Amino acid sequence: MLLDADDSQLVLVDYQALLMPAIFESERVLANALRLARMARLLEVPLWGTAQTPEKLGPNVPELQKAIEEAGGKILNKTHFNAVADGLGDWLRPPARKAPPGPPRGNARSLPKHLQKAPELDEEARGVVVMAGCEAHVCLLQTALGLLDEDFDVWVVTDACSSRTERNRDAAFDRLAGAGAELVTTEMVAFEWLGTAEHPAFRDVLALVK
Amino acid sequence: MLLDADDSQLVLVDYQALLMPAIFESERVLANALRLARMARLLEVPLWGTAQTPEKLGPNVPELQKAIEEAGGKILNKTHFNAVADGLGDWLRPPARKAPPGPPRGNARSLPKHLQKAPELDEEARGVVVMAGCEAHVCLLQTALGLLDEDFDVWVVTDACSSRTERNRDAAFDRLAGAGAELVTTEMVAFEWLGTAEHPAFRDVLALVK
Amino acid sequence: MLLDADDSQLVLVDYQALLMPAIFESERVLANALRLARMARLLEVPLWGTAQTPEKLGPNVPELQKAIEEAGGKILNKTHFNAVADGLGDWLRPPARKAPPGPPRGNARSLPKHLQKAPELDEEARGVVVMAGCEAHVCLLQTALGLLDEDFDVWVVTDACSSRTERNRDAAFDRLAGAGAELVTTEMVAFEWLGTAEHPAFRDVLALVK
Amino acid sequence: MLLDADDSQLVLVDYQALLMPAIFESERVLANALRLARMARLLEVPLWGTAQTPEKLGPNVPELQKAIEEAGGKILNKTHFNAVADGLGDWLRPPARKAPPGPPRGNARSLPKHLQKAPELDEEARGVVVMAGCEAHVCLLQTALGLLDEDFDVWVVTDACSSRTERNRDAAFDRLAGAGAELVTTEMVAFEWLGTAEHPAFRDVLALVK
Repeated sequence: MLLDADDSQLVLVDYQALLMPAIFESERVLANALRLARMARLLEVPLWGTAQTPEKLGPNVPELQKAIEEAGGKILNKTHFNAVADGLGDWLRPPARKAPPGPPRGNARSLPKHLQKAPELDEEARGVVVMAGCEAHVCLLQTALGLLDEDFDVWVVTDACSSRTERNRDAAFDRLAGAGAELVTTEMVAFEWLGTAEHPAFRDVLALVK
Repeated sequence: MLLDADDSQLVLVDYQALLMPAIFESERVLANALRLARMARLLEVPLWGTAQTPEKLGPNVPELQKAIEEAGGKILNKTHFNAVADGLGDWLRPPARKAPPGPPRGNARSLPKHLQKAPELDEEARGVVVMAGCEAHVCLLQTALGLLDEDFDVWVVTDACSSRTERNRDAAFDRLAGAGAELVTTEMVAFEWLGTAEHPAFRDVLALVK
Repeated sequence: MLLDADDSQLVLVDYQALLMPAIFESERVLANALRLARMARLLEVPLWGTAQTPEKLGPNVPELQKAIEEAGGKILNKTHFNAVADGLGDWLRPPARKAPPGPPRGNARSLPKHLQKAPELDEEARGVVVMAGCEAHVCLLQTALGLLDEDFDVWVVTDACSSRTERNRDAAFDRLAGAGAELVTTEMVAFEWLGTAEHPAFRDVLALVK
Repeated sequence: MLLDADDSQLVLVDYQALLMPAIFESERVLANALRLARMARLLEVPLWGTAQTPEKLGPNVPELQKAIEEAGGKILNKTHFNAVADGLGDWLRPPARKAPPGPPRGNARSLPKHLQKAPELDEEARGVVVMAGCEAHVCLLQTALGLLDEDFDVWVVTDACSSRTERNRDAAFDRLAGAGAELVTTEMVAFEWLGTAEHPAFRDVLALVK
């Protein structure tokens, strides 16, 4: 019932430049998405982004795009509101990591083959999907329900999600909870991925959230 | 867990002229009911209305009455607060469509019989009832619970429902959720019925909700 | 999932003179308790009251005491916060009606025996307990949970319940919902007990709630 | 479904001097923690405290530390946010009471062995853990979920819990409820542990909460 960084993947849905200005509490939401992306990098949690018809709504907000790339993450462009209909489930299933999650593992790939991690380690299932995005009641909701249908454990980070209206946002959370998603906050994710004040990344993660 | 327009019917409960002025947030609620009726027409979702003792409470608000008729919908007059007790379940069960949902299918009925759709297509079960209405805690609630008892999947569009008081309205939503109804918003319905930005009606539906 | 007057009993918990002035929204709560008592009389629903250590907290508020008596109801004096520990369950189980619920049946008892209703009718189980009271998080909560433990269906009328603080009141409602009580409002009870606008008591009950 | 003092233990999580000033509604929360500790002493409910890396965050607030000690309670120092990972479960399992809960039983231990309570009485399982603490969404949440995993019945006293932000606090409560914890208030605990106005400690406990 607590998150474990070793079982987790992070999915950030549609924080797109042309969409964000209309979003309720968009600054706070975007700041939390950035925290999540940076935590994922620090804790080597695989990270994925999505973008809805980016030719119309633009790419993800540059700062977040950069944070996703620095963590080794890829962006799935999609036309369906539910990213699973455009193949997200395949990206998340083992072998889950087509791209390395961050510099250390990226470097590892340039090592001689016998020094690299065995591929079956990379191919371990990470069935826990921590996710957030916009709009909460459209693309985030539909993608989360799509992943639940594919038997992933879905954890939605509510303070990193929003919609244009508060009411639609909250209606999404109620529906997600009813469908079996676990609703968490950015700080919950941080302290569960860490587990203990003795984690080597404790100070760095603490600096992100406080 | 996502709505599919091909499995859905829409039921609009008691938006009556003499009742609406006393309703909390009645303008917003009525606007959303109109959006739903127009979406149903665009997406060929069968549509039904009800009216509680219209000889006392008047007919449905004219603009909505017109939208229901343009979508090919019929109005069930009733004396029970639960429309199922006055036969709504029979209207919704296959053959669900006694009236065509909109002009295209209406026209089809005037074609020579061998060119019309086979009756078994019309007789397919549409077990998903999307519904909204007033008062949320009386006629909408009782009808929704009545349809759940008859094994329909019931989806209540909360931002198109209201009561004279906010508290009664919210108490209805809590009870509906506890009884197994799915609580959604007008925009959730729109984007789930569409599914993708490539749906031919995408622009028209988007224009209704934004 | 809808209330039926013929299966229902009404229990009103501890609306006591020395307690009510400290209660949050006490006027509204008491007004709704009175509405419930008067509806019970009109619809021949058996009615019971309770009083916590009345030698210290005083009797029920006079107007409510009178309404309970006019409906033929009795008051259970108790020392436990959970009225079931002082015997409420026995009062509610068949033969549930030691006292008649109102004038009509009271009169019936003075008829010659062969014209009276057969006792087995009076002894029918009425497993549905509609209840409300103060404080919501102490005596009402404990009594409701006690009745759930004894397999009654418990329906709590939230807008007729309160505590000294809003937070304690709401915490009681959350807990009751989690324990399987159905949360309703005074108007929900009215329109479900009636069922239809053609009920002979429709106008009288409507006059009570509107 | 109601608390019983004879089955209960009380756990107070991380009310630490350097943390409390940043906590939302910290005065009210701390006052309720003190009430709980004093009730536990009056009703002989075993009591435990925890402290997160006290070398950094300081000891528990002095007044609470004193109340815990007066009730015979011990403090578990921990580095994991989930106190169960540092051994709390072992402290709570029978023999649950390594330290006596208060003066009377403390004295009993100095009696000649044949006059002391039989050890199997002390070793009875008290499977019900009433708990509260800060931050609600980190150490309190993780410890509560940890105890649920170890099959304790967990009752969280919400008005004695808080976080630096209200939103994180409320998100913790939602998640705890979803995980099977019972959410209660300080007064609920008081009146359920008492059960009746005739309990010998009724006046003393009442004086604490009113």
